[in-house]
Amino acid sequence: VTLVGPADRIRTELARNPSAAGLPISLVDAPDVVRMDEAPLVALRRKPRASVKVAAGEVAAGRAQALFSAGHTGATFFAAHAAFGVLRGTARPALAVTFPTRTGSAILVDAGANLDCRPEHLLAFGVMGACYAEITLSCDRPRVGLLSVGEEAGKGNDLIREAHDRLAASPLFFIGNVEARDLFAGGADVIVCDGFTGNVALKVGEGLVDAIEAMLGEEAAAAPTAEAGALAMRETFGRLKRRIDYAERGGAPLLGLAGLAVIGHGRSSARAIRNGILTASRLAEADLVRRLREALEGQRAKGRRQRELKGRRPKGT
Amino acid sequence: VTLVGPADRIRTELARNPSAAGLPISLVDAPDVVRMDEAPLVALRRKPRASVKVAAGEVAAGRAQALFSAGHTGATFFAAHAAFGVLRGTARPALAVTFPTRTGSAILVDAGANLDCRPEHLLAFGVMGACYAEITLSCDRPRVGLLSVGEEAGKGNDLIREAHDRLAASPLFFIGNVEARDLFAGGADVIVCDGFTGNVALKVGEGLVDAIEAMLGEEAAAAPTAEAGALAMRETFGRLKRRIDYAERGGAPLLGLAGLAVIGHGRSSARAIRNGILTASRLAEADLVRRLREALEGQRAKGRRQRELKGRRPKGT
Repeated sequence: VTLVGPADRIRTELARNPSAAGLPISLVDAPDVVRMDEAPLVALRRKPRASVKVAAGEVAAGRAQALFSAGHTGATFFAAHAAFGVLRGTARPALAVTFPTRTGSAILVDAGANLDCRPEHLLAFGVMGACYAEITLSCDRPRVGLLSVGEEAGKGNDLIREAHDRLAASPLFFIGNVEARDLFAGGADVIVCDGFTGNVALKVGEGLVDAIEAMLGEEAAAAPTAEAGALAMRETFGRLKRRIDYAERGGAPLLGLAGLAVIGHGRSSARAIRNGILTASRLAEADLVRRLREALEGQRAKGRRQRELKGRRPKGT
Repeated sequence: VTLVGPADRIRTELARNPSAAGLPISLVDAPDVVRMDEAPLVALRRKPRASVKVAAGEVAAGRAQALFSAGHTGATFFAAHAAFGVLRGTARPALAVTFPTRTGSAILVDAGANLDCRPEHLLAFGVMGACYAEITLSCDRPRVGLLSVGEEAGKGNDLIREAHDRLAASPLFFIGNVEARDLFAGGADVIVCDGFTGNVALKVGEGLVDAIEAMLGEEAAAAPTAEAGALAMRETFGRLKRRIDYAERGGAPLLGLAGLAVIGHGRSSARAIRNGILTASRLAEADLVRRLREALEGQRAKGRRQRELKGRRPKGT
């Protein structure tokens, strides 16, 4: 583990923590920090020694195998994008968030990196999401669904209807549209959507869990069996919240970059940071980027063959 | 109350219910039904005597003041659209759903009627949502927010960024972007979004509540204080679920039609149906359609003045 940031502050923190002594932690000094309220591109231009930029540089130079950051998501995205470049076959790196379902886990992609998408982007998200699910969910043949307002093909906005056709024509195990209310039912391993919708879906979930927690407290206080019931419920909901809190599960990788970047939640606990670093380490060991490159290359080759069979010229891509 | 549908089936149901005897309920025969799995426009064309079409006709003819249906949402939308037409100043009728927040209630518009929107549609949703909030939430000056991925102006996709500028220039009390995780916090009275995003946001909420209920049962069973705690929790969560279940709150009006149509949730209970009919009745008494017409006309007049001041011709609208 290499910690990148203001060296004096990191040394002070490490010195305050006796259990850190002797751990194989190295340190790279980066005096600048991108604050959460800064415009990321402007901040990165003005601060060449910003920690996230220096950390991405360490990976690009081969001195580290993956970047993890729980700081400014946009800054991490742009720093990694500039340092690594993107894989052929995807114009857009996408954020893949693993979230809990009734039966296990599922992956939402894109969770917020691309707010305006075209149908071909959603196809690439499906290809990359399936590849990631094979590694992390141990699926042999991940079930890929498309987030929409109805299960039937043809339900959705223009983007979704076109993306549906492309996913259906791909070699993916495409199970069709998935309604938002079935997101947690466990019927799909990978849920594809544009980043705007993905961000809204995840954040609605977060906000609702917080609201339910507060309301349960009020309900319990007003209940006739208040004392014992309230205590039991707070304990139980606390366990449940940890179970469903994807922030605790460690980081979410950016799929589609030619290097490995893992993004942590802005409100990560120490445990979440540890889990995020572990995630980055495991994805590096599993050679995620090489496997994504191969998956995208396979999809591109299939697209070329299909177009040749149809005797048409490729459009744009 | 006028019940519209297959007369023999309605009479049989009424006869089975002794408390219905003597109630001021009239009956209009409509032998056909649009099934949930039918394409709505095709079904309405093939079935001129479909119940929702006949019911919309009753309102258009002035024999009823509002239409309520918990059947096929798309069929209700198109039947009402064809029978009533739309108000000037809005190209698109929008579904306005009232949902619970930590401090009271808020209105989400559009909750699914328009899956592809332009910025001017979102402005009209804000104008109509504010008018509806004045009536149903008793707000003097409803706080209107725009659902996006960040609070700052400029955060969002192309649609949201343009809609933000239009809302900011309108006479509405526009509080800017609202993040999805703050949806239930109570900071806004009206949340504006396109129908695709709105549908996803609401349905994620529904799905998560169902998943939490199931998980709480599992957690409670596994807890050391299982017996008493589980019972208390199930009771408490049941109350909470009824509190947050917007399906129970009665219907959601389509704002922007020149007649009143209220849509019930597909999984409405008898109580929800009663509440939906009550909602329709109250909105008719409050003269919602006339007030929406005036609000849209005011917005149009302001738009004309602004364009005249700028010395420009109106584009399109």
